[in-house]
Amino acid sequence: MKDLAIGVFDSGIGGLTAVRAISEIMPNENLVYFGDTFRMPYGNKSIDSILYCANQNMRFLESMGVKIIVAACGTVSSYIKKLSSQVPLFEVITPASTAAVEVTKNSKIGIIGTAAAIKSNSYLNCINGIQRKVKCWQRACPLLASIIEDGDIEYKNTNLRVLLDSYISPLIRNDIDTLILGCTHYPLVQPVIKRMFGSKINLIDPSREVAEFLKMFLKNNRLNRESERTGIQKFYVSGDTERFSLNAKRFLNREITVKNIDIESY
Amino acid sequence: MKDLAIGVFDSGIGGLTAVRAISEIMPNENLVYFGDTFRMPYGNKSIDSILYCANQNMRFLESMGVKIIVAACGTVSSYIKKLSSQVPLFEVITPASTAAVEVTKNSKIGIIGTAAAIKSNSYLNCINGIQRKVKCWQRACPLLASIIEDGDIEYKNTNLRVLLDSYISPLIRNDIDTLILGCTHYPLVQPVIKRMFGSKINLIDPSREVAEFLKMFLKNNRLNRESERTGIQKFYVSGDTERFSLNAKRFLNREITVKNIDIESY
Repeated sequence: MKDLAIGVFDSGIGGLTAVRAISEIMPNENLVYFGDTFRMPYGNKSIDSILYCANQNMRFLESMGVKIIVAACGTVSSYIKKLSSQVPLFEVITPASTAAVEVTKNSKIGIIGTAAAIKSNSYLNCINGIQRKVKCWQRACPLLASIIEDGDIEYKNTNLRVLLDSYISPLIRNDIDTLILGCTHYPLVQPVIKRMFGSKINLIDPSREVAEFLKMFLKNNRLNRESERTGIQKFYVSGDTERFSLNAKRFLNREITVKNIDIESY
Repeated sequence: MKDLAIGVFDSGIGGLTAVRAISEIMPNENLVYFGDTFRMPYGNKSIDSILYCANQNMRFLESMGVKIIVAACGTVSSYIKKLSSQVPLFEVITPASTAAVEVTKNSKIGIIGTAAAIKSNSYLNCINGIQRKVKCWQRACPLLASIIEDGDIEYKNTNLRVLLDSYISPLIRNDIDTLILGCTHYPLVQPVIKRMFGSKINLIDPSREVAEFLKMFLKNNRLNRESERTGIQKFYVSGDTERFSLNAKRFLNREITVKNIDIESY
């Protein structure tokens, strides 16, 4: 059981931020990743469509024999109560909200996410469940995951900067000191956001928080892999493997092998 | 046979520009529309994925008993040679290219389209096949179909204007006098493009051109509906019906009934 892999899924490459965080914190864990690149983006789909995709993604990971599943996707995480899996299922909202409440000094938190995630009020409800005194402002960023998935994520990309400015500036004007990057894709442009909005704002990366959370869960439940050998990581996508490999290399700083699967058959 | 519907498909709401054009030119024709809103956008998918979707879309339309099929989608149209249907199949590249060559005075044509459409060089090859002396410049607009599908397509939308400027200005600098709106979504922002780039540039709407082409084909092949009664139009989507109805109302200026179908079962 301990040697079984951690299953991670996302709508596309965004979830690689979770892979990176898990690799850094628990390098010996085995991992199976699924990126639903064929059907991405999720954030503009209806709730039924999002649940339909998430269920197939979980069935695929279960078929690979995983010990836990992480919905790295902020959009899916927002509707986690409507999902169930055969193994423990984790979402990113709770760990990220907890971290944001811990870190804010002026109790003003901003949240950016996909249209579907923001519509669910998942972060808002979670944060207010932890600490009622915190004030939150949230903002849907309908194009941000797509521009990041395209891979052109440097500061020099004018369209990226204009989008970030239009999405984040209204939150900054509300004097937030902490910003939750509420879609797994967003941490991939964290350096650009930092450069644009200064270092005064705490940026919360849900993938990093969920990785810390997972480590504790695995240890507490004696599910952590004991071998000290570096774990094996396997990558699957529903769309183009070549583009995924290329982008993944930039984020993980190494070559990976990516296989294509027919997700609709799960 | 003559009373059978014209089948039209697109990745989303974009193809409604074709519906509008067909309705205006041939109001008595019956029509079945399929918008693959669940799997949109197509333009960033691999060619295999695009063909996979297109084949299912055509099988669905065939199951509805149509006399011809129109691939209103510029991306699918770019790979039409790899597709086959049981009824005559039409694409938008040839009619739009023909119109552009006819209308340009300085023989300088610009083309905007999705990443996959531009990669195919479909417009470039078609135009050069018609008239070798014409110079063409093309540009991929990876986010444009998505921002339009979102429905926020007024001039006041800053992000829309910034994207349009970054995509179209480089073409304008090449002194083009004609611009092909090479993705069915783009004509929905034609008023914004006109306002931004003046009335000096001829804008080619492939949906309008294909509708004219169709009218001729149906007449020449005695497939045109003879009844003078207004045709019946049926709308199907793979995603959210509510959002589609709402957006459709704005483009067609009337209420429509939209049904959801499971496109993966075709």
